[in-house]
Amino acid sequence: MPEPPLLLTLDLAGTFAFALNGAITGLRATRLDIVGVLTLGMMTALGGGVVRDVLIGASPPATFRYWPYLVVAAGGALVAFFLSRPLRRFALHIELFDAAGLSLFCVTGATKSLQYGLAVAPAVILGAVTGVGGGTIRDVLVRRVPTVLTSGLYAIPALVGAAVAVAAVRTGVYGLPAALGAALACFLIRVAGIRYNLNAPVAPEARDGE
Amino acid sequence: MPEPPLLLTLDLAGTFAFALNGAITGLRATRLDIVGVLTLGMMTALGGGVVRDVLIGASPPATFRYWPYLVVAAGGALVAFFLSRPLRRFALHIELFDAAGLSLFCVTGATKSLQYGLAVAPAVILGAVTGVGGGTIRDVLVRRVPTVLTSGLYAIPALVGAAVAVAAVRTGVYGLPAALGAALACFLIRVAGIRYNLNAPVAPEARDGE
Amino acid sequence: MPEPPLLLTLDLAGTFAFALNGAITGLRATRLDIVGVLTLGMMTALGGGVVRDVLIGASPPATFRYWPYLVVAAGGALVAFFLSRPLRRFALHIELFDAAGLSLFCVTGATKSLQYGLAVAPAVILGAVTGVGGGTIRDVLVRRVPTVLTSGLYAIPALVGAAVAVAAVRTGVYGLPAALGAALACFLIRVAGIRYNLNAPVAPEARDGE
Repeated sequence: MPEPPLLLTLDLAGTFAFALNGAITGLRATRLDIVGVLTLGMMTALGGGVVRDVLIGASPPATFRYWPYLVVAAGGALVAFFLSRPLRRFALHIELFDAAGLSLFCVTGATKSLQYGLAVAPAVILGAVTGVGGGTIRDVLVRRVPTVLTSGLYAIPALVGAAVAVAAVRTGVYGLPAALGAALACFLIRVAGIRYNLNAPVAPEARDGE
Repeated sequence: MPEPPLLLTLDLAGTFAFALNGAITGLRATRLDIVGVLTLGMMTALGGGVVRDVLIGASPPATFRYWPYLVVAAGGALVAFFLSRPLRRFALHIELFDAAGLSLFCVTGATKSLQYGLAVAPAVILGAVTGVGGGTIRDVLVRRVPTVLTSGLYAIPALVGAAVAVAAVRTGVYGLPAALGAALACFLIRVAGIRYNLNAPVAPEARDGE
Repeated sequence: MPEPPLLLTLDLAGTFAFALNGAITGLRATRLDIVGVLTLGMMTALGGGVVRDVLIGASPPATFRYWPYLVVAAGGALVAFFLSRPLRRFALHIELFDAAGLSLFCVTGATKSLQYGLAVAPAVILGAVTGVGGGTIRDVLVRRVPTVLTSGLYAIPALVGAAVAVAAVRTGVYGLPAALGAALACFLIRVAGIRYNLNAPVAPEARDGE
């Protein structure tokens, strides 16, 4: 089935944000050349959607059926490569690109899962998986413990955004405003988490241990 | 096609064991908060089954179609989180949870692969892949060399358990006793391997090198 | 649909080359026993094809439907294990096995993707993904930053080989000579990259930083 325009638009916006983030990560984490930066940016940008499509049985994944995905992902990575010096001044902002991708992908992942016939709870989970997928692939490739494990407020905002989107679809109010509202809910929680370094509770053992 | 009750029961028992193991690993390996522990526990618990279902073309994976999987995985991880201190006394036993998950999943993976029309040898391999999948994802996420590579007696018991299950299905004696027997065969070999630190032969080169 | 003989032959040749490479990597990177070496060799050999088949919706993957894949992969890994000492003299050549697998898999990945109805650009990308997939899985498992990120001339030759193969199919000249020509184009670029340590340009920031 063809992608509806709203899903495609949000997906492409998230793809661009994740491509910027993945490429900049590549520039910083290791001394990668342009091909490595492009590859890491594209894997970060396209990974979440590919995982989502494989899991819901949308085969081949949208990434390989609609050329804009590949072009937008490559474009985002190239922008990051060529503007790496000016972008450096915005040191904090690389996390914001990741937060934007997370927010948009949790919404598209959840709504596409509903379209493919999944129930409410699995659609919320798959939305969150879509959101955290690309960043997790990125972290594994550059050998970091994935953000989804180390940051309490990474999976939670993705689940919130996906839940808001699913609720909107089920109550029949889904549309551009509802989708952006769901993404914004995720984005704000994530940014608050980064800004105030919030984390969920740790286990009693770990607390006492120090 | 719906999951038969025996497959579902064994799968859920394996899911619970792997969730305990994955969550405790998260508590020890890195200082994760509750969301990180829950996420690692669930990925460990659900990873093997998701990989199996993607490979045999059961789409979407059972994990996302039957809510008990998500609930049991989350429950196992939460139990590990809140009981982390008392569980600490049973230091050795974290490996036993992994062995239990391995044993149950190699059986369910093999029998489900046969149901989906795979031949005998691929069903045995896919059973083993199901068994080792979750633990391998866990190890990659916390940046350890996966157990399946470093321990000689991890893939082998999974292959044995899967082979016994496949033989039972093909000779028409499959049922709860046969399934438990196959799982027990895997479990005992794995536990003997841990207890006596058994390994398969190493290459001549490596042997002479020391 | 059954695999055409040309695709199967090239795929098996690539599988053998990657199995040798993966197993030797396992012998060197970590002190693995025979099961670990076999496992790493098989994952390296079969990983790219499995990823390709999952992405194009060929389910279950050819690896699990045609027994020669499993046998050839296991055979390659066992050869590497038992001949590890004589193979040691050919220190450089482990990279050549990887280059051979890369070259053959980018061609089979691209042509199989076309068969499954993908367009030209996605088929080229999926061909490259097939080529780099196994080696990337290998590197993640032994905890190295994947070659596809660190070496500029790894993804590029795979894209070139896939593009030549796709062009040959589309112009109706595809056959054994065209397939070998496409693989040879990839192989020569890759080997030149290794030999002369060529890389793509790095970002301005990184250049100035040192």
